[in-house]
Amino acid sequence: MATLPQLYEPLGVHLKRVETIFEQALLSDMPCVEDLCSHLRHLRGKMLRPVLVLAAGQACGELTKEHHTLAAVVEMVHMATLVHDDVLDEADVRRKTITVNRMSGNETAVMLGDFLISRSFLLCSSISCPKASQVVARAAATVCEGELLQLHNRGNWALTEQTYQTIIERKTAALTAAACELGAMYAGAAQPVVAGLHEYGRHIGIAFQIVDDILDIVGRQEQTGKTPGSDARQEKLTLPLIHFLAQSTNGDRQRLPALHPDGQDRAGLQKILEQSGSLDYARRTAHDCVARAIRCLACLPDNPARRHLRSMAEFIVDRQF
Amino acid sequence: MATLPQLYEPLGVHLKRVETIFEQALLSDMPCVEDLCSHLRHLRGKMLRPVLVLAAGQACGELTKEHHTLAAVVEMVHMATLVHDDVLDEADVRRKTITVNRMSGNETAVMLGDFLISRSFLLCSSISCPKASQVVARAAATVCEGELLQLHNRGNWALTEQTYQTIIERKTAALTAAACELGAMYAGAAQPVVAGLHEYGRHIGIAFQIVDDILDIVGRQEQTGKTPGSDARQEKLTLPLIHFLAQSTNGDRQRLPALHPDGQDRAGLQKILEQSGSLDYARRTAHDCVARAIRCLACLPDNPARRHLRSMAEFIVDRQF
Repeated sequence: MATLPQLYEPLGVHLKRVETIFEQALLSDMPCVEDLCSHLRHLRGKMLRPVLVLAAGQACGELTKEHHTLAAVVEMVHMATLVHDDVLDEADVRRKTITVNRMSGNETAVMLGDFLISRSFLLCSSISCPKASQVVARAAATVCEGELLQLHNRGNWALTEQTYQTIIERKTAALTAAACELGAMYAGAAQPVVAGLHEYGRHIGIAFQIVDDILDIVGRQEQTGKTPGSDARQEKLTLPLIHFLAQSTNGDRQRLPALHPDGQDRAGLQKILEQSGSLDYARRTAHDCVARAIRCLACLPDNPARRHLRSMAEFIVDRQF
Repeated sequence: MATLPQLYEPLGVHLKRVETIFEQALLSDMPCVEDLCSHLRHLRGKMLRPVLVLAAGQACGELTKEHHTLAAVVEMVHMATLVHDDVLDEADVRRKTITVNRMSGNETAVMLGDFLISRSFLLCSSISCPKASQVVARAAATVCEGELLQLHNRGNWALTEQTYQTIIERKTAALTAAACELGAMYAGAAQPVVAGLHEYGRHIGIAFQIVDDILDIVGRQEQTGKTPGSDARQEKLTLPLIHFLAQSTNGDRQRLPALHPDGQDRAGLQKILEQSGSLDYARRTAHDCVARAIRCLACLPDNPARRHLRSMAEFIVDRQF
């Protein structure tokens, strides 16, 4: 498997431009807003979505300044959802850094997320073709629908795999799909290729979220940089648990540790889900999604950028963080 | 003073169209999202911002379908800020209706606000000229900056009138200014007229917020439809208190009732601020803003629509709700 630096290496100069645009888009004449935006720098993560815009663009043609702008836009939208997610999850730590809600309170985190999303739309509207704004705004609204469906199903022990699928398709895959679609679109790709890249992005988004949910059960904070066990604490059922519950007897269910696991209970939960094959089921599902994503790349000519997208998909499912 | 129905009467058919667009823009294939959006209907308010788009448009020329769309857009942005404001203010009641945060929790209110803002940008991007999206997104980001500055100054007993002015210019006046600007712009007004209408909107926005802050001290829930006293509870200093503190001695300050007033303390606070002339000072300031707003209308020919804008300004400062 390629490492993250290897994956990002061919995009280096472009990612630098994206970062500059991102930083400029968050400038404010208000010191208190500037301070908050500086803190966001430490919360910046894998830059997966900008990389998808750029890699999809390279696979379909030449990268333009619109790609840099749109890569910054999708990262800003993502960042806004992270800041609000941390409020929802009552998270204290992300990427080994104190969260905005923990540092400055929920109210400030809510407003900072709103600021990010508004500035992302402002940046997006600097592109004269309104199609970009439509794709981004539609994806952002879909992300919210996914989050609302997830909140609606908090503590629902009868959550089906199908509803889980709908939740993660919307809350995560909508934005990765939009990133790939925009990358292809602004490289002048034909409609079937744009659609193919959208599908690629959707499948890797689903895989990404399943892996995230697995890591919440088995990952270590040193690696993931996040407080683990937050799904269980929030009564948020994810694929391993859904699989376990669907095929378990009442007796099995009673073996489940309490829903709000501290370190000890989390280890117990992990053991049960490992023994029942539920974690493996989730891993297989993620691998299947990645295989589907890779098949979508058949719409592209075989070139280094296409192989890059393939490596990205493989990285997403094999990552430990 | 004109009543609200009198003010809205000339816009009746247009407001109906705005409402239809607003409703359609919030449709979702998810029942849980639909339910939340239905609840928003009861929280809908005075429709001040859509009325400003339409009235500014009429004062400058013919109303177009873009006016209806933009009127719905600014109301959606405003609605999003209300839903998030209620989370920030821990408000239970708005417009005599239970708030989203109270009904479905803070998390759902945060996400519903995000959904509203994303859908507002989606609707705005249906207008082919990107200028509209730029004006709306810039205003939305400015609103957030104002809210962040306000949060930053929570409990700051040394808050100056100047900083208060900056807060309300951003959190409230930015959107009313944008509403009027868009109305003028899409009626084909010349640049000085667009700028004049922007200024009109800014001044009435400031006046509107000062009156809101006065009503939080002197208003009755039966009239305002909101839980009064929330500014004091949130340690949010507003103009009457800032004026009182700036001209008071230590002895005066000790007469102030506790910062978290229940009904009794609120009456005490009101009495002190009335006796000290601080409420009158705030009222005069609001009236001055309205006078400035009306002077901005000199850029328009004298027509019924201009008189309508004048009546709107007078209503804003004289309202009891």
